Amino acid sequence: MDNIVYEDHQIYIQKEKSEIPWLKIFTKEPHKELGNVPKELRQRLWEVYDTVEFHMNFYYKPKKINMASFANILPRVHIHIMARFENDSYFPNSMWGEKLRNATLNLPDENNFFKELHHALSNQFINRSNNRRTSSNERRKS
Amino acid sequence: MDNIVYEDHQIYIQKEKSEIPWLKIFTKEPHKELGNVPKELRQRLWEVYDTVEFHMNFYYKPKKINMASFANILPRVHIHIMARFENDSYFPNSMWGEKLRNATLNLPDENNFFKELHHALSNQFINRSNNRRTSSNERRKS
Repeated sequence: MDNIVYEDHQIYIQKEKSEIPWLKIFTKEPHKELGNVPKELRQRLWEVYDTVEFHMNFYYKPKKINMASFANILPRVHIHIMARFENDSYFPNSMWGEKLRNATLNLPDENNFFKELHHALSNQFINRSNNRRTSSNERRKS
Repeated sequence: MDNIVYEDHQIYIQKEKSEIPWLKIFTKEPHKELGNVPKELRQRLWEVYDTVEFHMNFYYKPKKINMASFANILPRVHIHIMARFENDSYFPNSMWGEKLRNATLNLPDENNFFKELHHALSNQFINRSNNRRTSSNERRKS
């Protein structure tokens, strides 16, 4: 698959081609609605969302973060996360709304953002795995 | 406030005027981004979202549920939740996208849906409060 910026056994993150920073978080196992995503995986999905939101805010300093989950054509849950700027082509409309201008955004290099994000998500994943191992060892001992 | 279909000390749910079933979940305390919502309140927000999604699906049998959080004009987190039908005016576009037709949807009475939803959310809230009281009593005993 193209434009994958992060991947592990549960989720992957794909870059959407756009003038703004725009990522899509997918679960590897497809689910129709958020309510169909098993509890633990959904928790993970929102942890990943949090990390992406935090790093998007930190790196790009956008006016607002936008989030959406539609999947009307191919009904498979994925979370859109977008950094919005007052001078982007659609603001304050949603990215699915009416285009209001032809923007030229001077954003910092996305490759550095992807590197930071990949580092943060990999650490989060390792810590999560370690914590689970520790707590299952503790359960075994007690 | 108008069109409030549910309210407690943490959250409220407002109906959006639309041809489709469309609700907006607000936290009472305003927060700019999802990442700014305190952890416990965010957990509550997604529990409420789940209940709304479940009852929307059960009552209206839509083709797909749509979810979004933008708040670009007034930066205050709220979650849109929409029941989408193949013959609604925008499907498969998002409700912020291009209108494709003039739909006439024959949906069941919304008042019964609101009644069911209010009942479910009130029960969820009571159970949550009881569980918290039980577990704090248990902590006190041990």
